Amino acid sequence: MRTVGTLLFPGFELLDVFGPLEMFGALADDFSLKTIAATAGPVESRQGPKAMADVALADAKPYDILLVPGGRGTRREVDNAALIDWLKRHAEASGIVATVCTGAALLARTGLLDGRKATSNKASFGWVVAQGPNVVWQTHARWVVDGKYYTSSGVSAGMDMTLALIADLCGAEKARWVADYAEYRWSNDPDDDPFATLYDLGSAVRDD
Amino acid sequence: MRTVGTLLFPGFELLDVFGPLEMFGALADDFSLKTIAATAGPVESRQGPKAMADVALADAKPYDILLVPGGRGTRREVDNAALIDWLKRHAEASGIVATVCTGAALLARTGLLDGRKATSNKASFGWVVAQGPNVVWQTHARWVVDGKYYTSSGVSAGMDMTLALIADLCGAEKARWVADYAEYRWSNDPDDDPFATLYDLGSAVRDD
Repeated sequence: MRTVGTLLFPGFELLDVFGPLEMFGALADDFSLKTIAATAGPVESRQGPKAMADVALADAKPYDILLVPGGRGTRREVDNAALIDWLKRHAEASGIVATVCTGAALLARTGLLDGRKATSNKASFGWVVAQGPNVVWQTHARWVVDGKYYTSSGVSAGMDMTLALIADLCGAEKARWVADYAEYRWSNDPDDDPFATLYDLGSAVRDD
Repeated sequence: MRTVGTLLFPGFELLDVFGPLEMFGALADDFSLKTIAATAGPVESRQGPKAMADVALADAKPYDILLVPGGRGTRREVDNAALIDWLKRHAEASGIVATVCTGAALLARTGLLDGRKATSNKASFGWVVAQGPNVVWQTHARWVVDGKYYTSSGVSAGMDMTLALIADLCGAEKARWVADYAEYRWSNDPDDDPFATLYDLGSAVRDD
């Protein structure tokens, strides 16, 4: 049984959190899910609906998998020194760290992605790159794996990344079972990113 | 501005709720989101994480769109006479009623789908059919529209249905914008159902 800890903050993006948790949660014998926030209790999403945080940051233990979502709230949280310090310590102590969308900006601010390949959502790519100028940002990727760091592109890409992570941990057959269970059209190809060309990603991006 | 009321009950499926709400929520100027349950407060999903219900059933007003998710909890709720009575009254009073996955079983128990075409998830199709033997169940459909009733297949299909509903209400261009925003691979074809043939749907199914 592996533990999955999901960070919540005001303005988190709903599907960044609940897409991956749908996939992990389909395997109740393999993954145990906890949500974490500044304080335990309700946390308002960017879209309005609130999710409950089970555990306060101060009480959280390291997890086998630490999931960091994006959302408008990241624009504020990148300057939240206490949160970034917590994230750095817990990312170092956790087995795997997975980000969705602009969650990569929060992880980039810890410095732990410096020199590593990573991706993020395409609509906000320039802003994310500015949060971690020493990260080797990938403009064309549905998700990227570099060591224990899994980073995915925008919103829905978190589901593809999570299925790939489940495949790495539990085997491809189990991941395919989850995708079929959720009737989700899974493309198990990190380079299959139809949204990479939708936006002008600007000259600030290093794509090496 | 249209109101979207989403029914929650213990054991609801996370992505049945938050996939559609991600899509509606991307259009904050067009849709206002509320969650409803037996009592206001936290409601535990099938996967464990809890969502907050904003409004108690007794205090809920009719909505422009009433969203009914599925999940293991539907096995219990189909026999919850108070809930089915509430659902019947509010489905009649709401502008549009949309179900995801086994949420169709709850709506079928109201009788409002009798003689109408509808679909549900494929893994539990036989059980759903038994909840509404007079519904014209469609075995091969990502989603089905019959009058004001939108019913979708399993879990992820709720996102496709919601984008189609947004297209019907706000235009196809806006729906495509939402899909791109969420970096979601949307197939805007209700007959494109790659999961219809995964399961043996049994002889109990009327497919006419």
